[in-house]
Amino acid sequence: MERRAVVGIDIGGTKTLSAVVDAQGRVLARRRIETPQRGPADFVQVLARELSTLLGLAGLQKEDLLGLGVGAPGPLAPETGVVFEPPNLAGWRDVPLGTMLFDATGVPTFVENDANAAALGEAWVGAGVGVRDQIYITVSTGIGGGLIFNGELYHGVSGTAGEIGHMTVEPDGPVCTCGRRGHLEGLASGQAIARMAEEAVRAGRQTRLAGLPPGALTAAVVAQAALDGDAVAREIYARAGHHIGIAVASLVNVLNPAMVVFGGGVSKVGDLLFDTVRRVVRERAFERPAEAAKIVPAALGDDVGVIGAAAVVYRRAAS
Amino acid sequence: MERRAVVGIDIGGTKTLSAVVDAQGRVLARRRIETPQRGPADFVQVLARELSTLLGLAGLQKEDLLGLGVGAPGPLAPETGVVFEPPNLAGWRDVPLGTMLFDATGVPTFVENDANAAALGEAWVGAGVGVRDQIYITVSTGIGGGLIFNGELYHGVSGTAGEIGHMTVEPDGPVCTCGRRGHLEGLASGQAIARMAEEAVRAGRQTRLAGLPPGALTAAVVAQAALDGDAVAREIYARAGHHIGIAVASLVNVLNPAMVVFGGGVSKVGDLLFDTVRRVVRERAFERPAEAAKIVPAALGDDVGVIGAAAVVYRRAAS
Repeated sequence: MERRAVVGIDIGGTKTLSAVVDAQGRVLARRRIETPQRGPADFVQVLARELSTLLGLAGLQKEDLLGLGVGAPGPLAPETGVVFEPPNLAGWRDVPLGTMLFDATGVPTFVENDANAAALGEAWVGAGVGVRDQIYITVSTGIGGGLIFNGELYHGVSGTAGEIGHMTVEPDGPVCTCGRRGHLEGLASGQAIARMAEEAVRAGRQTRLAGLPPGALTAAVVAQAALDGDAVAREIYARAGHHIGIAVASLVNVLNPAMVVFGGGVSKVGDLLFDTVRRVVRERAFERPAEAAKIVPAALGDDVGVIGAAAVVYRRAAS
Repeated sequence: MERRAVVGIDIGGTKTLSAVVDAQGRVLARRRIETPQRGPADFVQVLARELSTLLGLAGLQKEDLLGLGVGAPGPLAPETGVVFEPPNLAGWRDVPLGTMLFDATGVPTFVENDANAAALGEAWVGAGVGVRDQIYITVSTGIGGGLIFNGELYHGVSGTAGEIGHMTVEPDGPVCTCGRRGHLEGLASGQAIARMAEEAVRAGRQTRLAGLPPGALTAAVVAQAALDGDAVAREIYARAGHHIGIAVASLVNVLNPAMVVFGGGVSKVGDLLFDTVRRVVRERAFERPAEAAKIVPAALGDDVGVIGAAAVVYRRAAS
């Protein structure tokens, strides 16, 4: 029997998705659970049971699996499958997730940073199919990224490459979630957008956002207000797009990619954000690389994480 | 007879260097001329004569050459050897330099952007020997760069990757030589250092630079004043280092290199510049990649261009 199916797992701070993905990148079955919060050992036990349920849904057995691919919040060491210190998973520190999952399931397990996995997924069967040099940027609560050079995921020397959210774009700007000043994530992430909205309301600016309880001011609510024509909300998205554009212009000049793919919840607003990003890139990057770099939305939606995690396994099996 | 020698040519705005380089990266003979300014056709004729003279010096014949490597001011297309529009060579536009040199000499010719060639040279027999992921940055009149990923030169989709001087580091900063605002080159290149010195003198600040005629205020003169303890000159180098540090911190977070090699005339001041760069990188980049990225001076001095140009030929011959 041909062992061609792969299970991809996408670990998030609140939800964990898993799916059986075939060699063409098609999802054959999927599951979604609350991320277990009782530490890594419990997490691995829950995932092992999920795997059995999922295989049952797809009519497969463990023996049909080429491997288990896991996208986990970085930083981590992809060679060893050790997750260092994910900011959104309490009690996780230097967890040998790959080994633990293999011991619990008997299935060879490959672990990758979640943004890198998403980048691979989009390059495999998403927006970036056939594109040799591309950059994936996810804009959601935080901002992350993955780099595909010469058709391969680029890791850097310690496996931490792709931290696009932590490029400096305003040297004297606000303090980022990482504690450093002026990073992109502190200026254009979902959290930053919510903070700008709170500041506008607190400053007494005229906006329909003022009618909402403070906790309700999420990036999605601000996006809807902007799409409905609220001037303050539009200004907030223009500022976020301006800062993303500055970072992308630098990436375009330094890396000359053929494509920049945008995923993550905040990116779902589409041209409300991308129009500004594209304009700033044209203003600040050289003409030749700016023209070469197509700025496009991700194509795989909420499946990007599980498909990308499966892509990690197929790529490593092929190499 | 074994055809192992290569001639490397380093075309600058004022000087053109050429050298016979053996397969171990040793210079067997070198020449240096004023760069011919009468257009590409004349330039190629002069270079063909230089080649004969150089081979005579080394006791070699054309038949002993594996090829001719040329480092030219970018942007250019390395696959075809066409130089688009070098800013410092009047009358050059879309020049098929590779073909022209081959036609004039009969020796297979490979053309590369000069900063990329220098990056290859340092990776081959300079500061970055054996380092898989490294970034070369040249700080002289302008600021350029070359990227080595997985041991190979990275070009990007149009061959223009590496324009580190045109990362935005101060969005509202001064206008760069390229006409765009806030780029590193407009804030920390030799030209920018000279401009800051002129501004300090014009503002009436107390500095020994004030005694000099305006045209004498070069980056080298400012460097000597700084090394001699002049406070204004030291402040100017600290500002340049601050801005270089911001760009390098972003590169460290995004690319996680094992090494950043600094070449170019301005870099010769050494720790006067590097101490600030290293401090800013530690402040603004994540700990893990910041520790991984050794910041070091280039090792090949004025030979970096010709050795790098030769490296282009040896690499392509090997691939």
